Parts: sequence; structure tokens; C-alpha cells
Amino acid sequence: MKINVVESVLKANDAVAQTNRRRMDETGILTINIMSAPGSGKTTLLERTIPALGTDTRCAVLVGDLQTTRDAERLGGVAAQVTQINTGKGCHLSATQVADGLDSLDLNKVDYLFIENVGNMVCPAAVNLGEHLRVVLLSVPEGEDKVAKYPTLFQPADAILLTKIDLSTVLEHNKTKVYEDISRVNSRATLIECSPRTGAGMQDWYDWLQRQRPERAGD
Amino acid sequence: MKINVVESVLKANDAVAQTNRRRMDETGILTINIMSAPGSGKTTLLERTIPALGTDTRCAVLVGDLQTTRDAERLGGVAAQVTQINTGKGCHLSATQVADGLDSLDLNKVDYLFIENVGNMVCPAAVNLGEHLRVVLLSVPEGEDKVAKYPTLFQPADAILLTKIDLSTVLEHNKTKVYEDISRVNSRATLIECSPRTGAGMQDWYDWLQRQRPERAGD
Repeated sequence: MKINVVESVLKANDAVAQTNRRRMDETGILTINIMSAPGSGKTTLLERTIPALGTDTRCAVLVGDLQTTRDAERLGGVAAQVTQINTGKGCHLSATQVADGLDSLDLNKVDYLFIENVGNMVCPAAVNLGEHLRVVLLSVPEGEDKVAKYPTLFQPADAILLTKIDLSTVLEHNKTKVYEDISRVNSRATLIECSPRTGAGMQDWYDWLQRQRPERAGD
Repeated sequence: MKINVVESVLKANDAVAQTNRRRMDETGILTINIMSAPGSGKTTLLERTIPALGTDTRCAVLVGDLQTTRDAERLGGVAAQVTQINTGKGCHLSATQVADGLDSLDLNKVDYLFIENVGNMVCPAAVNLGEHLRVVLLSVPEGEDKVAKYPTLFQPADAILLTKIDLSTVLEHNKTKVYEDISRVNSRATLIECSPRTGAGMQDWYDWLQRQRPERAGD
């Protein structure tokens, strides 16, 4: 068994992704595909981010998991619109699943659409969902070697968030090693150190998010 | 794109896995397939475990990663025989890759063969490598919801290690929630709390490993 990167399957996916993108653009939505290993803090990040963007900013979330609706339940308290997508045995979201997710939302009432992908450092990277931006989380407890081991996840990232930064000291984490590996695979991404739990560095992330919106206004 | 659980592919894999198992049994090797998300501490666990088993216990490691030989380099210092298997874009090891790995080892000089699978909570669970035992790591920083979200990984585990247990207090981790979910999907597995970094609980893990060997002697 290999990851099924059958070209025809990916081509069919890309066609749906393009339709998704058109729907997002027509309604002025900025869509961010958030990817990471399981447990890097994607849901906690969104729990903190959506209230911080303010009541004038309308946020929706599509959240992918193999099973359970736990993340949707957590995010239902902060986002106006949340849809859980269960992938069963699928290790990533597909463009078709996102298309169904878009059908479930009132797109005229969305400024930011966050897609929380399935926790996985391999599969989601290969699959275009129609998103405008890709954000990858890497948490300090995962260690210093993950960028070198999973370069395909980090290569297309627009922003890379080093999360759980509050654990750096206790874990004697060497972020210089991480940054060296990132510079080799992606010199373009914005790097943000933060801890959704303590709030450290979160303003940098909010600022980055808000800087992406004006560029969308002209679409 | 879905995980490619095409039945014929898995059947072909299983045939190779059976051959692997026969080779292990013929040479009296106990093989343990270690699985977890990226960064749960598989390599660190082995770095501590192999020296602790004593010089009379001969250990070999097959270690799977998409790219790099970093884990093999780390383990080369502690294990007599280590082979790195690079899977490219593959999110798990296959029985054929393990067969090639077995070819690279002197099987007559191995008591324990540890297979460190690719860091992934989805793909490796579906693929039999011929191993005798499955050990799954779940680290405290990954949070309380991973057993419910990724049940297929935890269902066939013979032992489940709750790692980085030293971070429980700072992260306000609720292990009761984790154990409730485990009891729903797998009431059979031995549960061990440990921290390879601090040494806490590691003796329980070594004892478990050593209890598995006598049962193999009769094969």
C-alpha cells in the first residue's frame, strides 16, 4: 500500500478544487488550509484565533477527522458556522469533501474560512482543496527533525507556526535546527512562534492573518 | 485520494508478511512494530530501551521515514544492527520493505527486532508487517482526544505507552479521558505511563518487553 497519488485521481481532485476556489472568490472568502501532525494544536489555535479576530470578522470552519465530532463541538462555541467532515479511513480531506462542506455553509456570511485538515504530515500535503493559503503547525514537543523528515508538508506553506513554544525550555528544544531545515525547503514562508495555550506570540499570527485579507479585497 | 486500502494490494502485502513472520520465528526473533504520530518519542524510547535491556540482549532496528537517515544515525549508537528504510512518499512501511530490511540484518544475532514505523496515526495501522506485537505511543502533548479520533491505530495494540508523562502537570493533561477512550476500543492492551526523557515509568516498559520473550522461546 502506498499513498494513492494516482495522477488521474489527483487531476479529478484539482478540477473540483478549482470550482471550490471560484466559489470562495465569488463570495470574497479567504480560505486557509491548516495542516499538521495530530496534536500540534490546530483546534486550540482556532479556538483562540476566531474570538481574537473580533465580532466584525465572520469565521467559518470545515474540520476534518477520521471519526468523532469533537473538534466541531469545541469550535461551535467560537465560530458562527462549523461543519465536521468525517473521512472514515481517509488520511486527508479531498476537494469533493470541501465542496460538500461549502454547500453546508452560508458563504455570503463568511470572511475567513479555516479548513482544519486531518492530523497527518504526509497525505494532506498532496491534495489541493482550492484554498488560498496553507498554514502548517509544528509543535515544540514533536522535536527538531520533522521538517527534514516531512519536507513535502512544509514546502508549500505560506506560514509555519512553531506552536507550544512555552515548552521550549523544559524540553531543551533547539529551534535553530528547525529554522535551518525550513530555510532549506521553504525560504518564502512567514515563521511565527506562538503558544495558543499561554497566548505568547499570538498577536503575530493575528497580524499575519489580517494582512492577508486586504489582498483578497481586490479579487 | 483515499488511503489505498485496495484489497488485492493488502492481500499481496499479507503474503509477504507471513514470509517475514516465518523468518523471524525460525531465528527466534521477537518483532515489535512501534507506531505513533510524528514526534511521540519512538526513537527516544528506543535510544533508552536498548541499552537498558542489557548487553546480553541483542537488538536490531528497522526504522521507516519518508526521508533522511537521522533516526538510524541516532540508533546506530545503541543497537548492534540498524537499517533505515526511506519510504519516499509512503506514509507507512510495507511488508516488502521489511523483507528487504530483514535481508540487510544478520538474523542469527537478533533477540528483539524493533520496527519503528513512519510517524502517522492512519496508514501504518492497516498494514501487517509480520510483527509479533504492536506497540502504540501516545504522547501527553498530543492531547486527550486522539484515541477516539484514530481508533484503528489503538484497536490492535498489545501495549499502549502514554509518553512524555512528565509534561502532564504543566499541560493539565486529563489521562482519565484517554483511558476511558482506550477501554472502549481496546480492553486488552497493557497501559504504561512513561517518559523516556526523565526515565519515569520506563522499568514497567522494560518488564513488559522481557515478559514477552519467554513466550517466544517455545515457538
